Amino acid sequence: MTTEIITTTSDIDVVNAFEKLMEYKISSLPVVEEDKLIGIITATDVGHNLILDKYELGTSVEEIMITSVVTISPEDTLEKAINVMKEGGSSSGILNQLPVVEDEKLVGIISDGDIIQVIF
Amino acid sequence: MTTEIITTTSDIDVVNAFEKLMEYKISSLPVVEEDKLIGIITATDVGHNLILDKYELGTSVEEIMITSVVTISPEDTLEKAINVMKEGGSSSGILNQLPVVEDEKLVGIISDGDIIQVIF
Repeated sequence: MTTEIITTTSDIDVVNAFEKLMEYKISSLPVVEEDKLIGIITATDVGHNLILDKYELGTSVEEIMITSVVTISPEDTLEKAINVMKEGGSSSGILNQLPVVEDEKLVGIISDGDIIQVIF
Repeated sequence: MTTEIITTTSDIDVVNAFEKLMEYKISSLPVVEEDKLIGIITATDVGHNLILDKYELGTSVEEIMITSVVTISPEDTLEKAINVMKEGGSSSGILNQLPVVEDEKLVGIISDGDIIQVIF
C-alpha cells in the first residue's frame, strides 16, 4: 500500500479539491479529521459533476463526499482486498482505490494497479 | 475487453477532450482517424496540465496526444496484457488502460480493473 497519502479536510471547496486531485495525479482523495477517515471523493465523480455543472457555486467537500467509505485493515490479505474491491464496485467496474484504516485512522491506500503489480 | 469505445479525433481542443473524459467517466481517450488508432490521451495527464495551466489557449489533441501507444491484440492472453501494462507503466504504477488493436484498427480497450474482475 501507499503510505504517503494526500488527503483533504471537509471544509474546502470542491473546485479546490478537484484541483488537488489533478495536481497530484491521484484518482481519489480521502477526507480526514484529525487523522480519522470521515469520507472520500473520487476524481471521476467530482470531475463529472463539475463538468456537467451539477454543483452549486461554493459547494464544499463535506456536502458531496462519500461517507460510507469501503476500507480494509493493514492485516487483511490481498485476497480480501480484491473481494472488497469487487463487492464495493458498480456495474461499471471494481473499486480502484481502497483506503487502509487502523483504529479509525487512515494509514494507507491501495489501488487495483498496486495489486496487479504485486501478484503477477 | 470493452468494445463500446468512446474515442476522439485529433483536431478537437484539449479542453473539449477533457470534458468528454469527465462526462463519460473514462480515464483515457483513444484518438482515431478512420477507425485507425493514431494516439491516446489520459484524464490524469490532461487534467494535470490543464489545472497547472501548462497548455496554451486553443491547444488541440493532436499537439499533446501520446503517439507511441502501447497496445495488445485481441488474440493475446491476459498474462500478456498484464506484462504489457507493467512494462508500459512508470514508477507511479502500471498502465491502467490498454487499447486492443487488430489490423491497426481499434477494436476494444481493457483496464486493470477488468483484469482483476476476470481473474479472481
